[in-house]
Amino acid sequence: MGYKKIGRQSVKFSQKPFITGRGNIVGEKEGQGPLGKCFDTVLEDDMYGEKSWEKAESKMLKGAMTKAVSRAGITFRDVDVMLSGDLLNQLMSSSFTARDMHIPFLGLYGACSTMTESLLIGCMLVDGGFAKHVLAGASSHFCTAERQFRMPVEHGNQRPPSAQWTATAAGAVVVSSEDAAGLCRQVKIRAESATVGKVIDAGIKDANQMGAAMAPAAVDTLLNHLEDTKRGIDYYDLVATGDLGYIGKDIMMDLLSDAGLDKNKVFSHYDDCGTMIFTKEQDVHGGGSGCGCSAAVFTGHLLRQMEKKKIKRLLLMSTGALLSTISPLQGESIPGIAHAVSLEVE
Amino acid sequence: MGYKKIGRQSVKFSQKPFITGRGNIVGEKEGQGPLGKCFDTVLEDDMYGEKSWEKAESKMLKGAMTKAVSRAGITFRDVDVMLSGDLLNQLMSSSFTARDMHIPFLGLYGACSTMTESLLIGCMLVDGGFAKHVLAGASSHFCTAERQFRMPVEHGNQRPPSAQWTATAAGAVVVSSEDAAGLCRQVKIRAESATVGKVIDAGIKDANQMGAAMAPAAVDTLLNHLEDTKRGIDYYDLVATGDLGYIGKDIMMDLLSDAGLDKNKVFSHYDDCGTMIFTKEQDVHGGGSGCGCSAAVFTGHLLRQMEKKKIKRLLLMSTGALLSTISPLQGESIPGIAHAVSLEVE
Repeated sequence: MGYKKIGRQSVKFSQKPFITGRGNIVGEKEGQGPLGKCFDTVLEDDMYGEKSWEKAESKMLKGAMTKAVSRAGITFRDVDVMLSGDLLNQLMSSSFTARDMHIPFLGLYGACSTMTESLLIGCMLVDGGFAKHVLAGASSHFCTAERQFRMPVEHGNQRPPSAQWTATAAGAVVVSSEDAAGLCRQVKIRAESATVGKVIDAGIKDANQMGAAMAPAAVDTLLNHLEDTKRGIDYYDLVATGDLGYIGKDIMMDLLSDAGLDKNKVFSHYDDCGTMIFTKEQDVHGGGSGCGCSAAVFTGHLLRQMEKKKIKRLLLMSTGALLSTISPLQGESIPGIAHAVSLEVE
Repeated sequence: MGYKKIGRQSVKFSQKPFITGRGNIVGEKEGQGPLGKCFDTVLEDDMYGEKSWEKAESKMLKGAMTKAVSRAGITFRDVDVMLSGDLLNQLMSSSFTARDMHIPFLGLYGACSTMTESLLIGCMLVDGGFAKHVLAGASSHFCTAERQFRMPVEHGNQRPPSAQWTATAAGAVVVSSEDAAGLCRQVKIRAESATVGKVIDAGIKDANQMGAAMAPAAVDTLLNHLEDTKRGIDYYDLVATGDLGYIGKDIMMDLLSDAGLDKNKVFSHYDDCGTMIFTKEQDVHGGGSGCGCSAAVFTGHLLRQMEKKKIKRLLLMSTGALLSTISPLQGESIPGIAHAVSLEVE
């Protein structure tokens, strides 16, 4: 069997796994955003009828996964492995979702990069012959994340202009070895290559400056991906980072042109999920963030664009800020990470 | 390329990846235990010269990985991916270790099952042709874990007899596609098959009853592994669970004989890392636990036994309790999980 590693950090999929199912659920505010119509379900109440925000988030992830599995034309029984993660202590949302699934589960943590991490590992497991169907997902909830990383929402803290708004959203895809029923009825969407990111720390210590903390990692992963695959950024119809937000996106574009990329090409081929899910008028300050941000934009908007062949080559690159609830109190800076998966329409 | 899935939850490695390096560091108390002489480094001070326990744990993981890489006869530059996790909020130890490594990183969370999860995914990535060398590890620290899950150590809380002692330990292995220098100089140790566990919840709500919470998951994974591979427990010289401790080990053995396995075979072929790392005289009550427990026992003791050919077939099955710091306060029970990797001497 051939060696699939290319360059320093990337791999090329020999079987090119299919994205056969997708599903997502978002909160009320996300539903009011520019992509509102794209999502499968928009909640009227972010508690989702549960007693705690954590349980609501877990229920959202389960719902997104159920939709992805049904779109793929399979049942949970057909899923070989579930790969998922969230922002909560010890992956509470994913663990409790997996508890109800009764399928093999591998928990992942990549902060807001988790959607790409689960997709990336899922593609590797399918491409490597270890699974026929992998369920890959991620979730986040504004209220659970604020309580976890910043201040309890009840405090009503004022948020600085740089602060990003954690999306209340969950998204999941089914990665399959064969062109099953499901998405591929209309058009085949396949994973072609992927790049595993390194942890990069720019020395940012302010938990309200996530974009600045993550942008250098996103730049590092993108430049390595382009070098490993010998491509220019214009090879892709769209390179979509996870959730750098307005500030992080600007930093990303500046760093990319500093690195010698053509400003116009960057401008026309690059965007950020954190700037796509909300409008500035929604008072989200720095833009959207959270595992669920790129998960929902990817499964609700970007994959739909690929189904309509409006995007034929996509590089999804969710970005994560690997701070913990303890590390800032110990004076630590915020490490960032970004993974990339290249998807193409066939 | 052939399909490697066997049965419902297991996979068979076609290339049989090699364990080419191993490394570990343990705390003072672990060094005083029956396996004390097996470990690479025993700390005299569990702060390891750092300002916080979290930083000490991170330094331990880094040390264990450095040892594993040097034993494998490679450099960090040769490592394609680092797979690792710990018990802390948002994988603080692993993330901060990865920050210093400058190598591609995938963060995992499986509570105390993380050593097997990282080994399992590492073997899949190597066997699937995505990497030549994978660095897989896990860590835990008594003081960081107590502060995280139970009470700050400073409280001096009395621990119930069922409470387990989180091992202050870190362990790592290098999984390679080729028989490089390193461990395999003496004897080839290869991964042959693996089983991904399901999340099983026995309804236990007491965070001081980890063994009872995890045992059902361990039983489920072992029975599925034996069914998928069509083996009896006596196929293995040793089946080693992660950290069920004394109570969990008894429950495990009872449940296995209830499931129809021969009591004597279970007694002579099964043991638990949580009962191996400490003696009862060390006042650890329920036995050892923590990601680092099975990580250190595996890399310090079990792999050495395999190098000496005293163990020729090992099924490592770390067990995890997927509780969060929030879930018990919300009245949730503790979900358990266990993954298994079959290793053999060649």
